[in-house]
Amino acid sequence: MISDTTLELSQDDLDGDTLHEECGVFGVLGHDDAAAITALGLHALQHRGQEAAGIVTFDGSQFRSERHLGLVGDHFSNAETISRLNGPYAIGHVRYSTSGETILRNVQPLFAELDGGGIAVCHNGHFTNAMTLRRKLIKEGAICQSTSDSEVVLQLVARSRKDKIVDRFIDAITQMEGAYSLVALTRKKLIGARDPFGIRPLVLGDLNGAPIFASETCALDIIGATFIREVENGEVVVCSPSGIESYFPFGRRPARPCIFEYIYFSRPDSILGGRSVYNVRKEFGRQLAQETPVEADVVVPVPDSGVPAALGYADASGIPFELGIIRNHYVGRTFIEPTQQIRTLGVRLKHSANRAQIEGKRVVLVDDSLVRGTTSVKIVQMIRDAGAREVHFRLASPPIRFSDYYGIDTPVREKLLAAKYSLEEMRNYIGADSLAFLSVDGIYKAIGYEGRDNDAPQFTDHCFTGDYPTPLTDMAEEGDVTHLPRLVEVG
Amino acid sequence: MISDTTLELSQDDLDGDTLHEECGVFGVLGHDDAAAITALGLHALQHRGQEAAGIVTFDGSQFRSERHLGLVGDHFSNAETISRLNGPYAIGHVRYSTSGETILRNVQPLFAELDGGGIAVCHNGHFTNAMTLRRKLIKEGAICQSTSDSEVVLQLVARSRKDKIVDRFIDAITQMEGAYSLVALTRKKLIGARDPFGIRPLVLGDLNGAPIFASETCALDIIGATFIREVENGEVVVCSPSGIESYFPFGRRPARPCIFEYIYFSRPDSILGGRSVYNVRKEFGRQLAQETPVEADVVVPVPDSGVPAALGYADASGIPFELGIIRNHYVGRTFIEPTQQIRTLGVRLKHSANRAQIEGKRVVLVDDSLVRGTTSVKIVQMIRDAGAREVHFRLASPPIRFSDYYGIDTPVREKLLAAKYSLEEMRNYIGADSLAFLSVDGIYKAIGYEGRDNDAPQFTDHCFTGDYPTPLTDMAEEGDVTHLPRLVEVG
Amino acid sequence: MISDTTLELSQDDLDGDTLHEECGVFGVLGHDDAAAITALGLHALQHRGQEAAGIVTFDGSQFRSERHLGLVGDHFSNAETISRLNGPYAIGHVRYSTSGETILRNVQPLFAELDGGGIAVCHNGHFTNAMTLRRKLIKEGAICQSTSDSEVVLQLVARSRKDKIVDRFIDAITQMEGAYSLVALTRKKLIGARDPFGIRPLVLGDLNGAPIFASETCALDIIGATFIREVENGEVVVCSPSGIESYFPFGRRPARPCIFEYIYFSRPDSILGGRSVYNVRKEFGRQLAQETPVEADVVVPVPDSGVPAALGYADASGIPFELGIIRNHYVGRTFIEPTQQIRTLGVRLKHSANRAQIEGKRVVLVDDSLVRGTTSVKIVQMIRDAGAREVHFRLASPPIRFSDYYGIDTPVREKLLAAKYSLEEMRNYIGADSLAFLSVDGIYKAIGYEGRDNDAPQFTDHCFTGDYPTPLTDMAEEGDVTHLPRLVEVG
Amino acid sequence: MISDTTLELSQDDLDGDTLHEECGVFGVLGHDDAAAITALGLHALQHRGQEAAGIVTFDGSQFRSERHLGLVGDHFSNAETISRLNGPYAIGHVRYSTSGETILRNVQPLFAELDGGGIAVCHNGHFTNAMTLRRKLIKEGAICQSTSDSEVVLQLVARSRKDKIVDRFIDAITQMEGAYSLVALTRKKLIGARDPFGIRPLVLGDLNGAPIFASETCALDIIGATFIREVENGEVVVCSPSGIESYFPFGRRPARPCIFEYIYFSRPDSILGGRSVYNVRKEFGRQLAQETPVEADVVVPVPDSGVPAALGYADASGIPFELGIIRNHYVGRTFIEPTQQIRTLGVRLKHSANRAQIEGKRVVLVDDSLVRGTTSVKIVQMIRDAGAREVHFRLASPPIRFSDYYGIDTPVREKLLAAKYSLEEMRNYIGADSLAFLSVDGIYKAIGYEGRDNDAPQFTDHCFTGDYPTPLTDMAEEGDVTHLPRLVEVG
Repeated sequence: MISDTTLELSQDDLDGDTLHEECGVFGVLGHDDAAAITALGLHALQHRGQEAAGIVTFDGSQFRSERHLGLVGDHFSNAETISRLNGPYAIGHVRYSTSGETILRNVQPLFAELDGGGIAVCHNGHFTNAMTLRRKLIKEGAICQSTSDSEVVLQLVARSRKDKIVDRFIDAITQMEGAYSLVALTRKKLIGARDPFGIRPLVLGDLNGAPIFASETCALDIIGATFIREVENGEVVVCSPSGIESYFPFGRRPARPCIFEYIYFSRPDSILGGRSVYNVRKEFGRQLAQETPVEADVVVPVPDSGVPAALGYADASGIPFELGIIRNHYVGRTFIEPTQQIRTLGVRLKHSANRAQIEGKRVVLVDDSLVRGTTSVKIVQMIRDAGAREVHFRLASPPIRFSDYYGIDTPVREKLLAAKYSLEEMRNYIGADSLAFLSVDGIYKAIGYEGRDNDAPQFTDHCFTGDYPTPLTDMAEEGDVTHLPRLVEVG
Repeated sequence: MISDTTLELSQDDLDGDTLHEECGVFGVLGHDDAAAITALGLHALQHRGQEAAGIVTFDGSQFRSERHLGLVGDHFSNAETISRLNGPYAIGHVRYSTSGETILRNVQPLFAELDGGGIAVCHNGHFTNAMTLRRKLIKEGAICQSTSDSEVVLQLVARSRKDKIVDRFIDAITQMEGAYSLVALTRKKLIGARDPFGIRPLVLGDLNGAPIFASETCALDIIGATFIREVENGEVVVCSPSGIESYFPFGRRPARPCIFEYIYFSRPDSILGGRSVYNVRKEFGRQLAQETPVEADVVVPVPDSGVPAALGYADASGIPFELGIIRNHYVGRTFIEPTQQIRTLGVRLKHSANRAQIEGKRVVLVDDSLVRGTTSVKIVQMIRDAGAREVHFRLASPPIRFSDYYGIDTPVREKLLAAKYSLEEMRNYIGADSLAFLSVDGIYKAIGYEGRDNDAPQFTDHCFTGDYPTPLTDMAEEGDVTHLPRLVEVG
Repeated sequence: MISDTTLELSQDDLDGDTLHEECGVFGVLGHDDAAAITALGLHALQHRGQEAAGIVTFDGSQFRSERHLGLVGDHFSNAETISRLNGPYAIGHVRYSTSGETILRNVQPLFAELDGGGIAVCHNGHFTNAMTLRRKLIKEGAICQSTSDSEVVLQLVARSRKDKIVDRFIDAITQMEGAYSLVALTRKKLIGARDPFGIRPLVLGDLNGAPIFASETCALDIIGATFIREVENGEVVVCSPSGIESYFPFGRRPARPCIFEYIYFSRPDSILGGRSVYNVRKEFGRQLAQETPVEADVVVPVPDSGVPAALGYADASGIPFELGIIRNHYVGRTFIEPTQQIRTLGVRLKHSANRAQIEGKRVVLVDDSLVRGTTSVKIVQMIRDAGAREVHFRLASPPIRFSDYYGIDTPVREKLLAAKYSLEEMRNYIGADSLAFLSVDGIYKAIGYEGRDNDAPQFTDHCFTGDYPTPLTDMAEEGDVTHLPRLVEVG
Repeated sequence: MISDTTLELSQDDLDGDTLHEECGVFGVLGHDDAAAITALGLHALQHRGQEAAGIVTFDGSQFRSERHLGLVGDHFSNAETISRLNGPYAIGHVRYSTSGETILRNVQPLFAELDGGGIAVCHNGHFTNAMTLRRKLIKEGAICQSTSDSEVVLQLVARSRKDKIVDRFIDAITQMEGAYSLVALTRKKLIGARDPFGIRPLVLGDLNGAPIFASETCALDIIGATFIREVENGEVVVCSPSGIESYFPFGRRPARPCIFEYIYFSRPDSILGGRSVYNVRKEFGRQLAQETPVEADVVVPVPDSGVPAALGYADASGIPFELGIIRNHYVGRTFIEPTQQIRTLGVRLKHSANRAQIEGKRVVLVDDSLVRGTTSVKIVQMIRDAGAREVHFRLASPPIRFSDYYGIDTPVREKLLAAKYSLEEMRNYIGADSLAFLSVDGIYKAIGYEGRDNDAPQFTDHCFTGDYPTPLTDMAEEGDVTHLPRLVEVG
């Protein structure tokens, strides 16, 4: 039974009721408009992180850096900025982060002046032993200026006793655990690397002979670049003016990419693992219709992320698809709710019911996933207020029962609705007439497998199953560490 | 034949290739959270104008004003601002304007201190004799501080020899020609007025006893207010604490509302003339499918405005609907294209082709209307680049052949593609395999009429027909006037 | 006896403990760098008003305006701004105002589009019947967009039935009472006018043939212009490309300029009435030494305004002059005192005692004038804390017993220390060992007269004598007026 | 002979024609208002650096940092900022720097998280082997995030193998060469240290039992703290809640403080080496009058720095002192000169001639020192334009012939006027009728010595003599180093 007090939601709850990826990365080697190309690529990857963006270029003699809190288009879309970032080599980064940590010194790419030159690094993902390594480095006299994971990579590269920069880079990442796609820039090389399981995505493209790394193919499309291939799991791809080399410092093993890229993170027009993300999401919806049928008059997506699955659900069920919820695209990040009056209206700032499609209808409401459920409560209520006779809530993914430690900003486990409550308790909390999720096997079937191979799972899916593919070193050591004072930049 | 040079489009062309409404209005009388309510209402009307917003309140002894360039959410969503705007009476305004004119002194509501009190006014629409009246007023010694139409109303109210404020207001508007929805606030009254033809929309609602005016019903929905009725054409509705009175200073005549509210301006979840805007748009799509059938594999909307018509087209034609174009919602107003490299990529900043739904397909591309065609050229090209076998362009409205003078920011006639070229020339320019428009009668049929009643047209539709319902006094006199120097606020 | 509670000073008291002039004006006709010249002139006049600045130019076909809160150097010192303000005619204004009124719509120059052209006006001073005229204008249907005095001039010009602009201008000012220096710009003329008594200053200069108006000669010096003469009291000087004409619409009468220009307002390097302001201030000091001698070791000025008088005092008394107080020039307008700890340190943010010159000494402290005394209390205490044996406070002007209504921002009478208390009470409040003021006749003697001519006083000196030279119409009528609601721009 | 072209001065020349100190430091241990106290102290030290300011506090568990470009009063004077910087321990810094280097990551205090806690450091001065040590550290794998000297101290502390933080601090500074006053904050201690020669100043004060470090005594005066003593040359003073300890890691040797603190840098109300800075400057003026007498009518200081010496010169010579140049205090850092017209007016933005004191007079112009002479040329010209019959330029310090490497921002040697030209050439360049400097021995005599003790000079005076007290390691090695790419933060 869920107590009444659970229903007193703060705005914080609402803001936190989606998943957030921590980053998108991009890099290009040898293009006259390297910074402009990178700005465009990051713009296409903006959905992966809206809190900050940064670009580092190299012009043959000088690295240049520009990093800002805010959107790519706010800071990297004018000719003056782009011309300051001169040079034919560039890497860039977009970042999501919780508010307390979004300080400029943490915005990537990070840079280190090395004995033999310099190196800039940015990454998407999370190192599960970063804190442990950081403590060790500080004991040895290292000074860490940021609290970002990426700096640990830089410190390990700086301290490596190897000669060549690529060897030093490999020396560093073989000490790291977790999930990551790394892009690095030195005076002569552009490096792209993916963790041993290939959890976070990274693709290799080509623009008129210039090699390009990007988190997703949509960043290639925006600049008219050709998709070459995905960087493989555990691969280090080194681009230089003389060509592209590939290293597998971890040996070869089967990939196990993150299933959430299909469910939520990747843009629908991206191609991932050879599959159209949009098509996969429609298949999730079709599979969902087969697993959880219901008699109804209309299928309504929660916009925008629920639209492809709702189209699939409508298609498979024969129930008409309608835009029963209209999204207000002018909300932005700035609409603070000024009074209690406005706060109680809550979700309507972003969504409004299209009453003519709802009134008197039995509605199948389709969303991509359920995290804390705080927004879902409000949306179901809004649909009811618009006159729906019945509301059947359908999720195009399984219940999220475990937190992520690989770069997805999930709430602590106790805040995950499915970690605490039964299906019926959740239905009661959400206020729907029925509630149903896609099954774990349903996910795999929709993608084209017979189901999950429990002996060798095809995807990283711990949020549903608790099956974490890597050690969680920092988690294990957390209890033993006396916290020492760090610096808080208050202004 | 269209020359090659026509194809060299500047970014200005792209920015100008949609229609822009000039405003949305809102007012509330007697609510404790009047300013917050108004901010919310304006937020729901944000699609009607994104350049500036303003609110004026009255607290029984003092009018207070706050006006800003930018979005409602950027300036009116924090508790401090709302608390400065205290008082139970409020009116507000969102505004679109061409860049040269968007200066703060033109942002509405405008205010005048009168002998017997004060009055604040804001409006949606355009007075077709405003310049003529302005010149007359200046000759008589009036000082106009803005270049806004609304100030002419204020000046006429200030100079009226009538005693009562309502009589002075009626005295003023009976001198004005054109299309307008006006909302005015005095020390004791909230006034809503609509032009004699009811060209621009205005509805009356109620929130716990407090009367509300708003341009569209979606502004009632966001605050949970009840829709009462539309303000009638030529009606002046006067709300005061003692009740609501209605005046018809122009007598009664049939209404003739603007057809473009159905085609493009109103939000799909609004109810206009008793009809769901979303449903009307779907009907446009169905009618379009019947009038202009084509063999194809997929129906793709130009997002977001083409979606409902595309759903109707798909439904009537039996061709599957797919989101073949993905819109990037992070573009905002700030993405200046820094280099030629980026400029040539043009439209892709806002839209990207969902290649998996396009490649090898015969595509029916559905948009709401065609203005200058500059964006359409780029979108058709993008669809072809994504591998479409055929592209059939369908417009859910008739060719726009005439400029608007009632508050819709249309280009001068020479820039309207359909004003200059034949259907085949347009098809050739756009680069589509076929091009077809909904017929004028088709519009009327989709709405439920047998067709256009040419003797007494049901709608204001001059953009398609050239049939302007009011005199265009300023247009006629323009040639005779020696232009005198005005003030330009350069900073 | 002054109660203890009087000593609990707030920061507001401190801020208010000087006199503030309301404005400086400047104009130039026919110079290629008119806007730049005007910006420089206003910079030289910055001491007359630091809250806002504005410039209007005319280029033969277009007036251009730029107005900002802040210093001239903050907004009018970059090439881009200056190039926007093109044209060879320019007028400009710097303004001081109390905080509640400093809103952009009040920043001068103000502009009106007239039937025959346009006119921009700015002024220094105050019209003593402005409110009375304003009410009359509003009754007649005028709309006032600002609350500035200057707008009344504009409204009267706009409504004048005369044909020529100069006649309309004279028509307007002959309805105004009070003290003013006006500078106006039309399409063909630059006008400078001074009130019938010449209370506020205005000079005429020449820069390579271009006539220039400025509040003080220091604004001519900065641009290397030649001083021609002062505009006479009651004179209207009209400059046009064809020459300079002079009008005396009020007839001729003796001038009676404001004595405070010598005491405090004008810059020491300006020449006023043929006298060096710096020399006059030294003479005040010499006269003060003769009238109020004291045995002491050192003469210390309150910087910066007390320095010339202190030099004169030291010279006449033979007591050594030392910079016993150091002023911190980095304070600016922004140093809000964040804690009680800092607030109690108060005056030390701006001034610090030069202990080596103070310790063990008998100090004569010289300041220009005493308004509320709140700063003086703190300065005397600071000198005592630095070890002074005795502190003798000397003021180089008589006690201020009456408020000003001619554009000097004096406190209401009850806040003027000398209006309420005897000399001994003031000495006790200030905490000095002795306190003495320059006599009224001493002022006149120092300037070169035998004394004040009480039948026909040579200067406007009501602050000391209560002898106001003009009617105070608004003051007289204030009680009869029911205050109607005005607009407050809250953001 | 100096060529004509030398006289074509750019604005850059003007801006660079003074000396700039690089910093002021402040620290307090155990006061409830530590951050507010520090903000006030830094405000009093603002003359030592106007480009940036920073404060770090410690509250027993957390270090907090706030650093900004701009003045102390612009960023550290509001209650909100001060309350964010909570805790009873605080250190702070004001910084001057050339524009290219003023980036936020270089603004002090800098912080390092150490194994046993954390340490924040700020300093005034310059390490003459900082680059050499930096290269060595990077070779060993250290990552330097700033280009500031202070970071080298941090890196050396972090890498020290000693146990106790004080030992690690001493370990670090004994590797450093040059001139410095360092203030450091750890979890338990506040440390103040001065280089072996005591070149840069540092004093110890007390505020109700809380020990305070500050660059000058004026920072004690503003907060009402008691002066205890100067930190001695080569002394490390360690304050903790249990008391104050003193270390002399370099042994004891005679001090040799920088003579320029008396000439220009320190505030006149500060006490340095037991002497009033104001009095010393007056003595410089008296000595100058004896060494370089001239027949003249008036002694005029170049404000503000030349005032005390001019008072001394006037006193000793019997020639009257007058403020013949008025300084405009509203210039600030923002007055960019927009046009050539304004540029040619140059120095008048900051200074204007007080013509009444100059015209027809023989003027002795007194300034504190002569660097490049570019401003002096303009000032002499301005005095001549104001009608001076003769201009005799007198400098209250010897010719500057050598650059500084201890934290004073002097031009490269070739830009120093006295390094290139004879006295007569300089006089000719400056345009004065006569030119004379105070002698080196005159400086020492004015301070109270018989003259300079060439075997054991009492002061660091290399700018006049070329006698650098410490090795200049970086200077010597500069030629041998291949410059590696560093990061430039372009935005």
